[in-house]
Amino acid sequence: MATAGKVIKCKAAVAWEAGKPLSIEEVEVAPPQAMEVRVKILYTALCHTDVYFWEAKGQTPVFPRILGHEAGGIVESVGEGVTELAPGDHVLPVFTGECKECAHCKSEESNMCDLLRINVDRGVMIGDGQSRFTIKGKPIFHFVGTSTFSEYTVIHVGCLAKINPEAPLDKVCILSCGISTGLGATLNVAKPKKGQTVAIFGLGAVGLAAMEGARLSGASRIIGVDLNPAKFEQAKKFGCTDFVNPKDHSKPVHEVLIEMTNGGVDRAVECTGNINAMISCFECVHDGWGVAVLVGVPTKDDVFKTHPMNFLNEKTLKGTFFGNYKPRTDLPNVVEMYMKKELELEKFITHSVPFSEINTAFDLMLKGESLRCIMRMEE
Amino acid sequence: MATAGKVIKCKAAVAWEAGKPLSIEEVEVAPPQAMEVRVKILYTALCHTDVYFWEAKGQTPVFPRILGHEAGGIVESVGEGVTELAPGDHVLPVFTGECKECAHCKSEESNMCDLLRINVDRGVMIGDGQSRFTIKGKPIFHFVGTSTFSEYTVIHVGCLAKINPEAPLDKVCILSCGISTGLGATLNVAKPKKGQTVAIFGLGAVGLAAMEGARLSGASRIIGVDLNPAKFEQAKKFGCTDFVNPKDHSKPVHEVLIEMTNGGVDRAVECTGNINAMISCFECVHDGWGVAVLVGVPTKDDVFKTHPMNFLNEKTLKGTFFGNYKPRTDLPNVVEMYMKKELELEKFITHSVPFSEINTAFDLMLKGESLRCIMRMEE
Repeated sequence: MATAGKVIKCKAAVAWEAGKPLSIEEVEVAPPQAMEVRVKILYTALCHTDVYFWEAKGQTPVFPRILGHEAGGIVESVGEGVTELAPGDHVLPVFTGECKECAHCKSEESNMCDLLRINVDRGVMIGDGQSRFTIKGKPIFHFVGTSTFSEYTVIHVGCLAKINPEAPLDKVCILSCGISTGLGATLNVAKPKKGQTVAIFGLGAVGLAAMEGARLSGASRIIGVDLNPAKFEQAKKFGCTDFVNPKDHSKPVHEVLIEMTNGGVDRAVECTGNINAMISCFECVHDGWGVAVLVGVPTKDDVFKTHPMNFLNEKTLKGTFFGNYKPRTDLPNVVEMYMKKELELEKFITHSVPFSEINTAFDLMLKGESLRCIMRMEE
Repeated sequence: MATAGKVIKCKAAVAWEAGKPLSIEEVEVAPPQAMEVRVKILYTALCHTDVYFWEAKGQTPVFPRILGHEAGGIVESVGEGVTELAPGDHVLPVFTGECKECAHCKSEESNMCDLLRINVDRGVMIGDGQSRFTIKGKPIFHFVGTSTFSEYTVIHVGCLAKINPEAPLDKVCILSCGISTGLGATLNVAKPKKGQTVAIFGLGAVGLAAMEGARLSGASRIIGVDLNPAKFEQAKKFGCTDFVNPKDHSKPVHEVLIEMTNGGVDRAVECTGNINAMISCFECVHDGWGVAVLVGVPTKDDVFKTHPMNFLNEKTLKGTFFGNYKPRTDLPNVVEMYMKKELELEKFITHSVPFSEINTAFDLMLKGESLRCIMRMEE
C-alpha cells in the first residue's frame, strides 16, 4: 500500500489520565518494525479490562495511553521477518500472543506464551522498548500490545490471528478477548458431556460466553448464578434453565446448588473473580466427576481455601487463561464456529456506536447496560 | 463344594482391642447370603490402613474385629443372585465396591460407588446388618467389607474383582489396595506424557506405586521427595532419578523443585497425607500444563490453601480414590499389566511370613522396614 513504510496520521482515542473521558486525537503511527504488523482497525469493542486499566485504581498509572484490545482489522503493512501475514489479510488482535517457539507454545496443553504473555504494565513494543504512537512527536503508551482504540495500530505478529476474510469483522471482533475466554473455559477446560448440568457464576459477557459453551456442549440444565435478578431474562437467550440469586438464600449458594441437583453439578465455571464465588464454584460440583473452572481474576490478597478431602473425592479444580485458546492457532477455528452458525455472536452485541462516541460505550458498561458495544471506526 | 451352605470353621487373626497383638483364633464363617460370596483367602498383605484402624487412635473403636483388605483368594461358594462369580474363580477383594447400577458406577469418570463405597465404621454386611463371623456364637466385626485376615471370609459380590486364574495370587494380591491406588493416581489421573518430569511426595508403598506409574508412562525425570534419606536407594528401583529431602533446604520444597526444573514439574503426586506436602505438591507444578494429584488422606481439620491465580495460570489440582480404578471393571486389566511384565510387583514385596506370624508383619510396618509383607494362609 502507498502508506507502507511511512508514518500514518489518523484518529485515536487517548486516555490522558485515569478515569477521565477519552479524547479523540490525531496521532502519528510509525511503520511496523521487525516482527510487527500495522493494522487498520475497522471495528473495536469495549471490554471490562479496558475500563479497569482506564480507572487504574490501585495500579501504577501508565498514561497517556491508547487502550482497546477487542477488535477486527485488516493488515496495512508488515515489518521485517513477517511471513505469515500480508497486506489485506483479515486479523483479530489478541492481548496475549503465541510465539510458536517457547515451551508453552510447543506444549499442547498451554497457551501461556513465554514471550508474548499478557503484560498490562508494559506500554511499549517488546522489540525496541519504544512506542509506535506519538502526538506531535511525544510518545503515547500502548496497552497489552494491541491498542485498538485507534484507526491504525502496530502489533507484534504473534498477537494477530489471521481469520477467514469472509467473516464479518463487526461480529467476530468480539472473539478477541472476553467471549473466547468464557467459551473456551467451558469447551476446552470444563468440557461438559451432553446432558450434563452446568453452573455458571456471574452472568456478564464472559459468563454468558461460558454459558454459550455449555449450550453448544449439549448441557441439559444450565444454572446461572448472579446477585442481579435482572440478568436472568438475558441469560435465557444463552440457554439458562435455572437462576439462583445467592441473596435469596440464607445458606451458602453451593449448598443450594447441591440440593437442586441431588449431589452437585457436573461442571461449574466461575466468571466473577470474587473469592467466595470461586470457593462455592468448587464446593458445588459433584464428587466422583465434578470439574470446577476458575476464570474471573482474583485480587492479589485472595486465598482459596477448601478441605483437601474434596479432591480425594474426585472433584477437579482448574482455571484458564483466555479459555485455553492459542491465539494464532485456535482463534481462526472459533471464527469458523460462528461462520457455521454454531456459535451465536449477535446476542452478545447489545450496542453499536461510531468511534467518535467511544465515551458512550464506557458509560453503558459502567452502568451495566451493555454486554458488548461495538465501535465503528469508519464513521 | 462340600462346604457350600454350611458354616466353615477356620483360623482368623482377631483384633480384640486397639493396639494389642492380633490373636489367631478358630472362627465360624457363615454361608454367603444374597449377593455375597465366600472366599478362601490364599494370600493377604498388610497395608497401613489396617494398622491405622488397629491402633484406632481418635476413632470410635470397632472391636473385636477381623482386619485385612489386601488379598487374593478363590471363590468357595456364592449366595443367591450372584451370577458373575462361581466357585473356583480367582478373585481380589477390594475395600470399596462397584455395584454397576448407581450414578457413579454408570459414570465413566467416577469409581465412588454409592452402594459400596468404603465405610470404615461399618462392621457388618450391608445386606442384613449382621456379621458372618462368630467365635462360639458371639459376633466378630468385619472390616471395610473384606476382613481378609481369615482363611475364609464373606464379601459382597460388588467388592470382588475376578481375575486371570493364571495370575500368581501371592504377587497380585497387593493390587487390592495401595499399589493400585498409587499406580492409578499416576496412570489414570496425573497422566504424564512420555519424557515429562514427575515429582512424587512420600516414598512409602503408595508413593513408590505412583512412581512405578511414572516409569510406565515414560517419564524422563522422576523426583522423589521424602524426609527419610534411606528411602532413596529403594526408590531408585522404581525409576527415581532425583531425591529431595525437604530437611536439607531452608526454603519451601516447592521452591526447590521449581528451581531444579526451570519452572516446575509437569506432574506431581502427593502420597503422605500431610497438608503442607499437599500444598507444595500443587505449588511445584508448572504453569500452563502442570497437574497435581492428591492421594494421601488428610485429617479432618486440614485446610488446603493457595492463591487462586495458580489456577488461572493453568495449573490443575485433582485427587483420587483408589487410583480412579473401578474395582470390578478395571482391576483385572491391572493384573494383566503384571502378566505382560509391564508392571513390576516383586519389588514391592519385601517380606513374606506364614499367617501365624501376622504380628511380625505389623512390627515390620511399624518400624518402617517393609513395603509389603505377604502372609501365606496355608502354612
